[in-house]
Amino acid sequence: MDNKQLTMDNYLKLIEEALAINGDSPLKEAVQYSLNAGGKRIRPVLTLAFCEAYGGDVRKHAPAAAAIELLHTSTLIQDDLPCMDDDDMRRGKPACHKAFSESDALLAASSMAYRAIYMLEDPRIIKAVCGYMGKVYDGQKLDLGGSPDTLRVYELKTCALIQAACVTGVIAGGGSNSAIKNAHDYGYNLGLAFQLIDDILDGEGHESAALDAEKYTREALKLLEAVPNNEFLTELTKKLLHRKN
Amino acid sequence: MDNKQLTMDNYLKLIEEALAINGDSPLKEAVQYSLNAGGKRIRPVLTLAFCEAYGGDVRKHAPAAAAIELLHTSTLIQDDLPCMDDDDMRRGKPACHKAFSESDALLAASSMAYRAIYMLEDPRIIKAVCGYMGKVYDGQKLDLGGSPDTLRVYELKTCALIQAACVTGVIAGGGSNSAIKNAHDYGYNLGLAFQLIDDILDGEGHESAALDAEKYTREALKLLEAVPNNEFLTELTKKLLHRKN
Repeated sequence: MDNKQLTMDNYLKLIEEALAINGDSPLKEAVQYSLNAGGKRIRPVLTLAFCEAYGGDVRKHAPAAAAIELLHTSTLIQDDLPCMDDDDMRRGKPACHKAFSESDALLAASSMAYRAIYMLEDPRIIKAVCGYMGKVYDGQKLDLGGSPDTLRVYELKTCALIQAACVTGVIAGGGSNSAIKNAHDYGYNLGLAFQLIDDILDGEGHESAALDAEKYTREALKLLEAVPNNEFLTELTKKLLHRKN
Repeated sequence: MDNKQLTMDNYLKLIEEALAINGDSPLKEAVQYSLNAGGKRIRPVLTLAFCEAYGGDVRKHAPAAAAIELLHTSTLIQDDLPCMDDDDMRRGKPACHKAFSESDALLAASSMAYRAIYMLEDPRIIKAVCGYMGKVYDGQKLDLGGSPDTLRVYELKTCALIQAACVTGVIAGGGSNSAIKNAHDYGYNLGLAFQLIDDILDGEGHESAALDAEKYTREALKLLEAVPNNEFLTELTKKLLHRKN
């Protein structure tokens, strides 16, 4: 347990280091504010954990994990905008467009996206990530349009970014095509469980949400059996089912 | 002259083919609307012209040129939003957020960006393009903040995307590092001339704008002397100085 906790701390330290924004962009303050607004870094941790499970060098690939967090944060900034979900607060702090301005938030979100892609070295990772990000925006569109197909919305809006995180880790770690496919499927199931628990924590979960979350978590755990050195990922997957925030 | 006109037509045909949006994204309509709203395709033409000048296969690299147009269009959609320049019209047609909705416009712009990067195969091009795109957003921020440093704003906001177009072409065409640097400098000068003429056509140009536009065009033409097979680019550069829209 101590050992595992240390691993999580190590991952988080690597991610924070790789997220440090250099340069003198006029959008730096808005970018940093959003990056440091209390995100749990679950997605970049998944990237590093998959990378390490397949024998990759997590120090070398920390920028890829940081890129995933940048992409995730850029979508959160956009989600909170008045024309989207119109949320003034994010994780107990003013949303980026309230702390700064709507235009700052919009520009910071796009700036972060290009910064993220810039940090990705492997063209296969870039292609995979851009494909998943396209799905995220399709999912937002369906969600805002009130699509009744909740599963499809979750698959696009939530799962795709988690799948991007996992698949990026596998490619960075040198995993095979079947390992990539396995991480894609794992991310799908983890993403659904994650979103259902989010719904429950937001008081919005439907009646069978808890049972469904358990079902998808079990499926995710089953898929992890094919992953080498899967102790950390197994533990994390179980923890995410029982998280309280 | 006929021969040159044919080349432009050929470039435009290749670009339109590469811009055709496949798949069934729920954002497809908004993306297509904006792509077909009368853009002159100057940036992707620059990409193909540089590519061909350095001996590259323009058919093979048409997707890279299309990607540049997607990126350009995504910034125009964002520029027109109420929290940005708040323009209801773009090239005589309703802006994307008026024809659709603000959220559709925002989502389509991001979706186009990822689609664009997905179309770029060469990691050197991706890195260059993402670097330039970061500058575009920095420039928007300075511009909206009312920066008095007009040259700096133009350099970031306008020149960077034109430089991305030129540099992408050179890399796709197999040009050397010094050819890349030369295209970067050419794009800077063409970008300044382009923006100054835009200002004049918008009735906003300062007193010496026309003279400055000529000066930067002369500089751009001088830089083209180092480019092989530069007839098309030379002609285009001169035409852009005298354009009426």
